[in-house]
Amino acid sequence: MYNICVLGAGYMGSAITFPLARRNNNVNLWGTWLDDEIMKTCMDGLPHPKLDEPLPSPVKLFYSDDLEDAVRGSDIIFIGISSEGFLSVFRRLLDVLDHNKYIYTLTKGFVDDDGRIKKTSAAAAELLDNKFGDGKFLWTSIGGPVKALEVCRDIPTVSVYGSKTEEMAGMADHFCTDHYKVVHTNDITGVELSADFKNVFATGMGIIDGLYGPEMAGNFHNFSSLIFNQSIIEISRIVEKAGGKKETVFDNAGIGDLYTTSQSGRNRKFGELIGRGGPPEEVYRTMLEEGELAEGYHTLKLGKQWLEDNYSGLLEELPLFNAIYDVVFKDKDPLEQLSGILKNL
Amino acid sequence: MYNICVLGAGYMGSAITFPLARRNNNVNLWGTWLDDEIMKTCMDGLPHPKLDEPLPSPVKLFYSDDLEDAVRGSDIIFIGISSEGFLSVFRRLLDVLDHNKYIYTLTKGFVDDDGRIKKTSAAAAELLDNKFGDGKFLWTSIGGPVKALEVCRDIPTVSVYGSKTEEMAGMADHFCTDHYKVVHTNDITGVELSADFKNVFATGMGIIDGLYGPEMAGNFHNFSSLIFNQSIIEISRIVEKAGGKKETVFDNAGIGDLYTTSQSGRNRKFGELIGRGGPPEEVYRTMLEEGELAEGYHTLKLGKQWLEDNYSGLLEELPLFNAIYDVVFKDKDPLEQLSGILKNL
Repeated sequence: MYNICVLGAGYMGSAITFPLARRNNNVNLWGTWLDDEIMKTCMDGLPHPKLDEPLPSPVKLFYSDDLEDAVRGSDIIFIGISSEGFLSVFRRLLDVLDHNKYIYTLTKGFVDDDGRIKKTSAAAAELLDNKFGDGKFLWTSIGGPVKALEVCRDIPTVSVYGSKTEEMAGMADHFCTDHYKVVHTNDITGVELSADFKNVFATGMGIIDGLYGPEMAGNFHNFSSLIFNQSIIEISRIVEKAGGKKETVFDNAGIGDLYTTSQSGRNRKFGELIGRGGPPEEVYRTMLEEGELAEGYHTLKLGKQWLEDNYSGLLEELPLFNAIYDVVFKDKDPLEQLSGILKNL
Repeated sequence: MYNICVLGAGYMGSAITFPLARRNNNVNLWGTWLDDEIMKTCMDGLPHPKLDEPLPSPVKLFYSDDLEDAVRGSDIIFIGISSEGFLSVFRRLLDVLDHNKYIYTLTKGFVDDDGRIKKTSAAAAELLDNKFGDGKFLWTSIGGPVKALEVCRDIPTVSVYGSKTEEMAGMADHFCTDHYKVVHTNDITGVELSADFKNVFATGMGIIDGLYGPEMAGNFHNFSSLIFNQSIIEISRIVEKAGGKKETVFDNAGIGDLYTTSQSGRNRKFGELIGRGGPPEEVYRTMLEEGELAEGYHTLKLGKQWLEDNYSGLLEELPLFNAIYDVVFKDKDPLEQLSGILKNL
């Protein structure tokens, strides 16, 4: 039994409190300044507005102003915020931390740190080292095929925890329930990059759905399948080049997560609307105004920059990534770009 | 340009004539005794009853009685019949062959050869050797994510051709079109076993769809995803044990083909009806009466026997295969069996 503070009261942060509380951990849930309305609703005893379920009753709730109270006494910090909000929340967290704690993060993607594109974990490692200088990185990155709404409804779920720290793997066994299974790997890079880049490729899968539309439903699986497979192949190339293991991609963190993300969700929808003819920038902005952030858009932009900065020549081995990029940022024809992949197989 | 005889005028045999004819090969299409009605319809100039498209006009059509005429003068034989009909058609073919020809086969699965369970290619190799005794096996097994209806409608498609013969790979480049791409591997075992066993695992994916039903659509992807991933892992274990390469499974022949088969088709439907509570034997028979053969049922039965006969101990590493087997043949509870997989991850 641990004392755990979860940062972020959106989908994932709130959902993870369900298995944590069921295993009798003491859970504090802190909402960011964007979550104050959600927290008020939950404090009034109403269902969580995004999950449409009441949070587990033992979970203690904290407004954005009360970060220090929420964190005090916790052994473990869970981070469940968007990558856009990551740096500002993480800096606030460090302000109130008096020693290096165990951090499990659900946050995916890249951050733009004053013009330098970094993985969130790399940015966190720098900040932690600046503050504590002990070189310890008590960090676990969480990936795998996990939709928040299903976690709080006890749908069988596997989550992949990537950590170099065996101690943290042992602790995570106390987060498992009959329906929420944690599997471990020491390949943090593989877990993170699979989670990041799957959003791009789920956008590609969505584009195909949009191109053919419901009237052709079920009649373009040959195409979807080869794009799905090519997505996995390209993620494995990225991970291997970045020092991770392709075995991580050919497993729940890669295949499993891309499967979930390709079937539903915002990134798939972003692609679908583009496939139907929507101008990508306009689709992105409209979705954002409706509260739906298509992370794939950012991963395309920041991820491409990160790949260019760090792994010269790799982009040439990613024809599908490039095709999706050209559709989203260069207004190239979606069918021509995606079916062009056949030439590169 | 080759002279090609395609055996079998069902979905796949008929569909493959489209790219073959487009590349100006001379194509004969021979229908089995079960296809005589189809052939008559096509000879009358009407659309192919299963594909709902007229066959390409240069394709010459042959009734079941005219096998010798159909085969005469062909350089290449394509086999596009069901595994159930394979042995009897193949024996007839050998009766009319005067020398060993290049054989490309779309037929998947296992055959029961007088009580011995064999892969179709192994059974074919024995028969060819008995007849010609030259030890040459001019054989290509075709897999990959290919639905027939999409091939004849120019949906972008990749097909994986497994052959030890470089000459046959070179010949197959003459079957490609802008929409039908052939990729090559020398891992026949990987291509065949991926194609065979995916039917079992697509049944598993269908069971989950059936358990939750349309009213929960989109709300059990965590579960589907981990089952999809576990399917790929178990196919890779089978292939590796049988001397194939897991790289073949982690590519279009495995990931791609399972994706297609899990999204639609008879094996998925067979599972879905079981997930909704249908008694497996009854579901199988009802579908069969309606002309829909659930190959996964046979691959479960014959494939299990084949695994036990040849790879002692391997079944213990296939918890999902066993779970699906127990649902279909031992009337075990589907949700309990499939969610039980979590314990084995």
